[in-house]
Amino acid sequence: MKHLIAVALALGFASAAYAQQVAAPLTPITAAQQRTVDRLQAAALESNHAYEIAESLVTEVGPRMAASEAEARARDWAVAVLRANGFENVRIEPFTIPYWDALREEVHIVSTPGAQPLVAAALGGSPSTPTNGLEAEVVRFPNLAALEAAPNNAVAGRIVFIDEPMTRTQDGSGYGVAVAKRGRCAPVAQAKGAVGCLIRSVGTDPHRFAHQGGSSRQPAGTSLPAMAISPADADILARLVARGPTRVRMLIEADIRENAPSGNVIAEIRGRARPNEIVLLAAHLDSWDMGQGAIDDGAGVAIITAAARLIRQLPRRPSRTIRILLAGSEENGVHGGAAYAREHAGETHVVALESDFGAGRVWRFDTRFAENAMPHARAFRRALAPLGVGPGNNEATGGADVGALRQAGVPVVDLQQDGWDYFDVHHTPNDTLNMIEPAALRQNVAAWATFVYLAADNDWTFRPE
Amino acid sequence: MKHLIAVALALGFASAAYAQQVAAPLTPITAAQQRTVDRLQAAALESNHAYEIAESLVTEVGPRMAASEAEARARDWAVAVLRANGFENVRIEPFTIPYWDALREEVHIVSTPGAQPLVAAALGGSPSTPTNGLEAEVVRFPNLAALEAAPNNAVAGRIVFIDEPMTRTQDGSGYGVAVAKRGRCAPVAQAKGAVGCLIRSVGTDPHRFAHQGGSSRQPAGTSLPAMAISPADADILARLVARGPTRVRMLIEADIRENAPSGNVIAEIRGRARPNEIVLLAAHLDSWDMGQGAIDDGAGVAIITAAARLIRQLPRRPSRTIRILLAGSEENGVHGGAAYAREHAGETHVVALESDFGAGRVWRFDTRFAENAMPHARAFRRALAPLGVGPGNNEATGGADVGALRQAGVPVVDLQQDGWDYFDVHHTPNDTLNMIEPAALRQNVAAWATFVYLAADNDWTFRPE
Repeated sequence: MKHLIAVALALGFASAAYAQQVAAPLTPITAAQQRTVDRLQAAALESNHAYEIAESLVTEVGPRMAASEAEARARDWAVAVLRANGFENVRIEPFTIPYWDALREEVHIVSTPGAQPLVAAALGGSPSTPTNGLEAEVVRFPNLAALEAAPNNAVAGRIVFIDEPMTRTQDGSGYGVAVAKRGRCAPVAQAKGAVGCLIRSVGTDPHRFAHQGGSSRQPAGTSLPAMAISPADADILARLVARGPTRVRMLIEADIRENAPSGNVIAEIRGRARPNEIVLLAAHLDSWDMGQGAIDDGAGVAIITAAARLIRQLPRRPSRTIRILLAGSEENGVHGGAAYAREHAGETHVVALESDFGAGRVWRFDTRFAENAMPHARAFRRALAPLGVGPGNNEATGGADVGALRQAGVPVVDLQQDGWDYFDVHHTPNDTLNMIEPAALRQNVAAWATFVYLAADNDWTFRPE
Repeated sequence: MKHLIAVALALGFASAAYAQQVAAPLTPITAAQQRTVDRLQAAALESNHAYEIAESLVTEVGPRMAASEAEARARDWAVAVLRANGFENVRIEPFTIPYWDALREEVHIVSTPGAQPLVAAALGGSPSTPTNGLEAEVVRFPNLAALEAAPNNAVAGRIVFIDEPMTRTQDGSGYGVAVAKRGRCAPVAQAKGAVGCLIRSVGTDPHRFAHQGGSSRQPAGTSLPAMAISPADADILARLVARGPTRVRMLIEADIRENAPSGNVIAEIRGRARPNEIVLLAAHLDSWDMGQGAIDDGAGVAIITAAARLIRQLPRRPSRTIRILLAGSEENGVHGGAAYAREHAGETHVVALESDFGAGRVWRFDTRFAENAMPHARAFRRALAPLGVGPGNNEATGGADVGALRQAGVPVVDLQQDGWDYFDVHHTPNDTLNMIEPAALRQNVAAWATFVYLAADNDWTFRPE
């Protein structure tokens, strides 16, 4: 009964939202544009082109750490694929970054009972430990706040273990909460005299994978070795700490190099009438290296490339320029997005959006438009509705690689993907091609083609007038 | 409609089977025995004792390869646990075996495109490769039969890759088919001149784990390095081989030692009236080392120990002796089971059974009894029915560790567990405590306590009269 009431309420709200949407002002699109949208959606839902792109990247390049030799191969792959798909002005825009990779990353419980190896990943940017590792007693905190509240003498000389779990959410909002411990463990623990940091992996799965991830927002001077352990290993450690004093050895051998070469790959469909007005589509080329970088972010690379290609194949190119940005070095500090924003600050970006949340279906359309542009937002929503995309809010972030543009005032949108399962796989060895559902990928391409075509083939603006 | 018909048919069959069972001769049990069975089942379904035993083994010992130092710690753990639970004649029966472990086990695709590391596990018993690995072009076969049918010149000088998938089944029967490639790849490929063997892991999951496993039934003289790769890596390799010549480097550093110490741990509840008649309960202590040995076979150790303990706590001990065998070195050749059979060949084993199929619920009761004992089988079935255990067949195997006894004529039963998910986890890093469902473990204990009590507190025999 409770269930029926909940359903009735949900339907009520949905109807109200729908009525509002229908009643609100809406920028009309032409009958010809609607026919084009219908054609794009039908073509996208029939084509496996995006899946083939993801397959090619994963198979022919594989994992590709920021500024690695493999990332360079990924750029060459991207140039070839973008040219083969008929885009213009295909080019690499190089930049350099501090390179980081872990050559060894091991954690062992060394006290008895319970001496055993744990499954671990060094956090991006972590320094090396001494060659034979560092060994200390573990002090466990249920969450970051508990560490922050702890007196120094509870922490000094120990390895801090933050055992905070992550909440599963459809929109990925659990990540923002959980990821705080990844960046904050080392600086907070170091200030209290700790010798190392372990965190329960930032993820929602039950599998024995450690989730990789950067801790790039650390203040200068942070020098504490930091690692993530798998959920089952966090369980083991928590149980042993509850039994009595438990000692752990952490070992990291990090490969750290300054000024390592990375780069962005750019491609365009030049606009028919307003070529200097740019609709920017972003995804990133680099990946963590325990997985294959299939959902993060082979899927995004595939979605935006396949969507733009459908538009390129239209009889008439859109009014504005559509630009693809395949960013380098996103994972360890969003370097590609920052380099792009520096390089292209003087250009007119009409709107920017990014695909970097896996291969789940688009379920919601969010904008960050000026109030005067909301009728355009409603036009996009109406066009996206047949794909099962519902109305969202006006608080879109645009994603990491377009974050610098957003901060510079560029309007952004989010084609929000269903992220229910995303953090099961995110930054783990399980980020493999078989985690991509081809039908969901097709729906993404349809949604992207719809939005990008309408944004590029109109004179709508989304900034304050 | 089809669905409804199928349900009706299924119900029809079920009713027929039930009617047959009810009508068939059935050895009666006394009202006092039925009360004891009821009490045992209620106690089992309320107690987390088995889960606590599994938790203790996984947490305090962890992975424990056959004849390793960790397996020795597991024996000490078992002796302490069995004594603490009030069993008698707790002892270690030592034996020695050839020790094998892999210190390094790596596979890389080294040709372009596609150069990348694969997730791999050396197969138990595999020799080492040369120190820098062995490199050759890969030849793929969709299954073992295709390799067997291949001409030598298609195989000579190459690394054979058997890409055969495994079928998911509730009773585990898919394993028997799929595991053939694990044992047969090396000898068959070697006879045709291959230099190495790769197999798609024997498992049913989509996760990026290689499944470990022995290849102990190889003919003498087999010396081909052999490894399993994860499903996602098998996919990558298959796709690259389809694109063109693909070269792989295999690297194994095996630690091989003769006469390494292992052993069985034995404990008893001595029989009240017929102490020389033994009901044997087996599970194994050792495990593969990428996981924690939780479902294989921490769960079995926990189930049989908890079930026997419930019987020990009864006001009156059963007529016959109940003996627990926690076997050593099962995984790499069933050495513990063989040693037990040799050591105890002269004793009277009334019936033997093993728990070595994870922590899934018992769904079926199979026997291997003489025809004259079928009324006893039906008595067991009636007693097990309230736990959701259905009737099975008279072709029980008893399991690996009691295989030698079965071959010597000892009657066996199988409390068949639901194995639908078992091979998702089996022999992988994912074999961790969180894969055990506590409620299912309790149901196992209830089923075991029921069978073992009735077998031990009667004078029923299961051999031909």
